[in-house]
Amino acid sequence: MRDFTADHRWLSVNTATVRQQHGQDWPLLQILDACAARGIRAVSPWRDQVQAAGLAETARTLRAHGMALSGYCRGGLFTSEGAQDDNLRALDEACTLGAPCLVLVVGGLPGALAGQPQHKNIGAARRQVTDGIHRLLEAARERGLPLAIEPLHPMYAADRACINTLSQALDVCDALDPGRSGALGVAVDLYHVWWDPLLQVQITRAGKDRLLAFHVCDWLVPTTDLLNDRGMMGDGVIDIQQARGWVEAQGFAGYSEVEIFSKANWWQRDGGEVLDTCIQRHRACV
Amino acid sequence: MRDFTADHRWLSVNTATVRQQHGQDWPLLQILDACAARGIRAVSPWRDQVQAAGLAETARTLRAHGMALSGYCRGGLFTSEGAQDDNLRALDEACTLGAPCLVLVVGGLPGALAGQPQHKNIGAARRQVTDGIHRLLEAARERGLPLAIEPLHPMYAADRACINTLSQALDVCDALDPGRSGALGVAVDLYHVWWDPLLQVQITRAGKDRLLAFHVCDWLVPTTDLLNDRGMMGDGVIDIQQARGWVEAQGFAGYSEVEIFSKANWWQRDGGEVLDTCIQRHRACV
Repeated sequence: MRDFTADHRWLSVNTATVRQQHGQDWPLLQILDACAARGIRAVSPWRDQVQAAGLAETARTLRAHGMALSGYCRGGLFTSEGAQDDNLRALDEACTLGAPCLVLVVGGLPGALAGQPQHKNIGAARRQVTDGIHRLLEAARERGLPLAIEPLHPMYAADRACINTLSQALDVCDALDPGRSGALGVAVDLYHVWWDPLLQVQITRAGKDRLLAFHVCDWLVPTTDLLNDRGMMGDGVIDIQQARGWVEAQGFAGYSEVEIFSKANWWQRDGGEVLDTCIQRHRACV
Repeated sequence: MRDFTADHRWLSVNTATVRQQHGQDWPLLQILDACAARGIRAVSPWRDQVQAAGLAETARTLRAHGMALSGYCRGGLFTSEGAQDDNLRALDEACTLGAPCLVLVVGGLPGALAGQPQHKNIGAARRQVTDGIHRLLEAARERGLPLAIEPLHPMYAADRACINTLSQALDVCDALDPGRSGALGVAVDLYHVWWDPLLQVQITRAGKDRLLAFHVCDWLVPTTDLLNDRGMMGDGVIDIQQARGWVEAQGFAGYSEVEIFSKANWWQRDGGEVLDTCIQRHRACV
């Protein structure tokens, strides 16, 4: 297992972690500058942030800083209208930015995210998602840009993602890419999967060629909001180091990406303070 | 599958559903009277409500109404101090009240419910829980009072119950009661397990002798609170009838128990209105 205590070369910052500070959007290019100034070598930006900053300008700034991506957030939402076209655009953006994978948040029951679920058949939604990934996979192969299915916590099954365990995500990988070509894998975000009694078993099943991304934050007790009360590493109950040991035992040697949505705490602080804390906790708790 | 549309003979009301109306505790004996007046034949009371009403008086009132129990809430919390003694008391109360089973909410990381988790080793907590159930099972056998392990939604894994899927609960049943004696089984609460892609498979695995209780409510989109924003049947996205079909295909022929914690909605209404709505939705949506 790699030693993270001495430096933060394997830290990546998901830019949603500092997307809005004190209620104001922190522009992506400024976030990139602030990361570079701290020796943070990688980020994972969100599409809306890239769109606001401009795709070409974002790519230029990344190049200027010699900064890598640990992923691109996000494609998916396969149960929504127009998903395929939008996902193709996301793939192209990911290529332009040099992302190693497109992270897929696959979508829930159609209409549910807007509070208007069109039906209650989660099995049908899951089939629709698998079909959508199948269709997108061809385009991803053509571009040489892998797709990373991110299982989301079961509390998001209705409205955000009906793939809720690593087992389920890997079943889809087995079905659509039985040859383990590297074009399809998973993003393991500990916030979503830490509770799973099969976590270690499924990480082992995934193996190096399907472990495309590793995301960390922490589960707070109590958690006061279903979406935006994620904790900084070390402030909650997830045994992050144990899980990192499991993915590294499979040969994963990529970035540890910090992704924290925290309306009441970290989004209310100065962005530089948040980044400094990410660095410190990456060394101490990841 | 039984026809619920014509009457509500298989409706049970978990008394937490009407525990506090307009911010005031509704006393248990009054709840029992209100249920009886509506032809509700079964309830599942909580220990704190029974304690406030008096155990003997509760038993007398149940007898006077000819009212059955569909369960007794709750034992468990095996990772807390003094769990065994408290669980023995719960067993005795359940016997006095004629409950068919003691529902077990097994507990999470020690101290986490109070916001002070003592460690992050959920595997150790799970072993402690299995040991606790093992110890309690002997006493349950002596009393002829089955234990029903209730898997809780993964969002409660840290602080309330580290058994989070039906698969996990049935693994414990297999380990501790391989002979399927009937002394140990599960409570299937759809709020907790509706999202599970293995739900039907695990209900089938449980079989009639391990399906000790069936709880319903609904998952709202959006859900605004992790604990107290459960929906009335029909107001959310759970396909309740499909799941009831699955348990009944195994031979389950017991009560369908309504258990709704709803701080902002149903607890703000008149208790009689809530009970009337339970009856109506039981017929239409369960």
